[in-house]
Amino acid sequence: MTTSLRTVPNRLSKTIHQTSKWGAKYKWGPQETETGMCRLSLSQEDKNVRDWFVKETKSLGCEVKIDQIGNIFAIYPGQKKGPPTGIGSHLDTQPTGGRYDGVLGVLAGLEVLRTFRDNNYTPQYPVAVVNWTNEEGARFPKSIMASSVWAGVSSLKDIYAIKSITDEKPVTVLEALESISYKGKTQANCNENPLKAHFELHIEQGPILEKETKKIGVVTSAQAYSWIGVNLKGRAQHTGTTPMDMRADPFLTAAKMTMAVNEIAERHLGLGSVAELHISPNVVNVIPKTAEFIIDIRHATDVGLENIENDIKRALENIVSDTEVILEFKRLFHNDAAHFDKSCIDIVQESASMIVGENKTIKMLSGAGHDSCSTTNANVPTAMIFIPSKGGISHNPTEYSSPEEIENGFKVLLNTIITYDARRTM
Amino acid sequence: MTTSLRTVPNRLSKTIHQTSKWGAKYKWGPQETETGMCRLSLSQEDKNVRDWFVKETKSLGCEVKIDQIGNIFAIYPGQKKGPPTGIGSHLDTQPTGGRYDGVLGVLAGLEVLRTFRDNNYTPQYPVAVVNWTNEEGARFPKSIMASSVWAGVSSLKDIYAIKSITDEKPVTVLEALESISYKGKTQANCNENPLKAHFELHIEQGPILEKETKKIGVVTSAQAYSWIGVNLKGRAQHTGTTPMDMRADPFLTAAKMTMAVNEIAERHLGLGSVAELHISPNVVNVIPKTAEFIIDIRHATDVGLENIENDIKRALENIVSDTEVILEFKRLFHNDAAHFDKSCIDIVQESASMIVGENKTIKMLSGAGHDSCSTTNANVPTAMIFIPSKGGISHNPTEYSSPEEIENGFKVLLNTIITYDARRTM
Repeated sequence: MTTSLRTVPNRLSKTIHQTSKWGAKYKWGPQETETGMCRLSLSQEDKNVRDWFVKETKSLGCEVKIDQIGNIFAIYPGQKKGPPTGIGSHLDTQPTGGRYDGVLGVLAGLEVLRTFRDNNYTPQYPVAVVNWTNEEGARFPKSIMASSVWAGVSSLKDIYAIKSITDEKPVTVLEALESISYKGKTQANCNENPLKAHFELHIEQGPILEKETKKIGVVTSAQAYSWIGVNLKGRAQHTGTTPMDMRADPFLTAAKMTMAVNEIAERHLGLGSVAELHISPNVVNVIPKTAEFIIDIRHATDVGLENIENDIKRALENIVSDTEVILEFKRLFHNDAAHFDKSCIDIVQESASMIVGENKTIKMLSGAGHDSCSTTNANVPTAMIFIPSKGGISHNPTEYSSPEEIENGFKVLLNTIITYDARRTM
Repeated sequence: MTTSLRTVPNRLSKTIHQTSKWGAKYKWGPQETETGMCRLSLSQEDKNVRDWFVKETKSLGCEVKIDQIGNIFAIYPGQKKGPPTGIGSHLDTQPTGGRYDGVLGVLAGLEVLRTFRDNNYTPQYPVAVVNWTNEEGARFPKSIMASSVWAGVSSLKDIYAIKSITDEKPVTVLEALESISYKGKTQANCNENPLKAHFELHIEQGPILEKETKKIGVVTSAQAYSWIGVNLKGRAQHTGTTPMDMRADPFLTAAKMTMAVNEIAERHLGLGSVAELHISPNVVNVIPKTAEFIIDIRHATDVGLENIENDIKRALENIVSDTEVILEFKRLFHNDAAHFDKSCIDIVQESASMIVGENKTIKMLSGAGHDSCSTTNANVPTAMIFIPSKGGISHNPTEYSSPEEIENGFKVLLNTIITYDARRTM
């Protein structure tokens, strides 16, 4: 089926740029819209966009629920009762982020509801647009934070206690929620406050769509990934006075490990990188005493990731075995692969084929984690829609998707929601 | 010859620890003396120790000259006129430094003068103890700074303009000199204010003496060394969404280069390391956009260093050749090998053999640069004496040489000065 609802061209793009005033930063071009964003979760800027979102959705006739962890559910009424069909993503950004990551998904949801209202269209069942709290994990260092509480994967108590890392005076999640009045009364629980399905429109944040000249990515799953923290202890010694064979140089060791991580991940057709590293004292003529870094590994399957992780652990132990460098490592974070729901994926594919032509669509993995991984963990049928990211760039002020690409994504989402709603039987 | 002058046991060690009150920091053990030091050049702490040094040497009958770059020459009179025999090193320390590096050499010089005074001994010719300004290059980023001005290797004007890198509000060398009243009137010039010879007692700052169980290192030369700054530009991309073959990862490139630097230096029997590195944005899930690091390479000979440098440049170009990473490098700093004076070395060897036994001495290179490299550049006959550094550790609060080792070093210096003076003919 295809929807006959009239849409307002580019209203979504305008909304994205209008609401970017709450957090706009890092001007990179002459146009007013050519800036990045810094809208950290539960900050004053986040409060401003949340207040606007609540007001806007209420004016469309939505019931708005705020749950205990600040997730906002704006529920557009249907003809029948039942758990809403969800459209969700997040309004928070990275500290040096762009205008589209997350924001697109929530505001496209809003645009779906506005289109319903414009056309006096009432879906069979309620449709909820969800703004999930702190997906980025930038202010409070736990990504996909609040959707994982809702899904029952993280405990509310533990999450409340997480301290911010971007404030001069750290505050807890609980304190931040209270300070902007977004600690709601609705249970943060997928059983108490359920969704029937979850659809998320998102920028790809990678280069594949652009490279393959596709317009829509039909996302079938999100990769498994792990972060492994590695601490190396060597000896701080003068670079000019310490013979090569009397050194314990943790940065040289880290260099060898970085090469091993890349080689192993590539061999297993996964991804692997070292992108965060701290050496101390970090002075040209003193061999570092310590090197600390985080390994990021990803694979389409859980077993593939496990193979990479095991090979890397063996390689790390091998690399230090003939040195005096002391190795410690531990897994800091892990996410199983999230496999999205076949019937939801099919509806996205169907909608995308209709709107941009089948040959402009591609089935793909999500490399990054998303709130849709939480809804999958909560056994909510889920699918995602990707639009191209210019140059594959994301988590960066210059992150960009064109108005046309945004419009494509919105139309695929709109058609998906209407189709899903029409086929729902309860 | 051996000196018959009476010495006061351990007075030098006591002086080192007493004067450490000006800058003591970083307690690492229960004893009062078990701290490191932070006495940055031309700081208030440096002024305090300078004022004390001037007063102390004047009380011994010295004439004190301060030159235009703050070098202090405390000149003990001889029986005849003539350029003084120099004993020099530096009273400034690293920001997280120890109690011995540099300080030992100046205060051992003072102890030589005190011993002269105690014994009513007048050398043939004047003996000057010199405190060279900013040897460490820690506050003002130019090591061996003021002795290189005196030697005519650096221009006074250029050096005056260098800005501090450790102050919240940077100041120039000239401003700092004026603010502590150590911009003197004596020409900072080895021709106008000459030395006849230069002897420097120093801690080894490396592990060789300890490993070989030797008590005195007779230093024959200081290594050639170069610092090469490398800037790598890649692409900041999401680690989860960017296929391995579409990345331009400057940190992976830096890792390969670090391994190459180590291998090449080792092959040429030199030293090579990467100990200072900055990656940006330095976030676990964003491939760095840039990696900047400094290569430190050293060799006993100038030609050996040149071979290492050429091989490294070829290797760097090779490593980036099949990537999209952009490489820029330039030599930031270079010092030719400094070959000390044969007759000065012979006197040190003679004195050391007499005092600790020939089998407890070893001829060695200096791995680090010292003010003695400047005096060599000024064609002043120069030699250095090393005592062991515990664990080879230096530029670190736990830097340590025992009272006995200090006493050995002092006695070798005393005997060297008396012997040199006795053999001087003008």
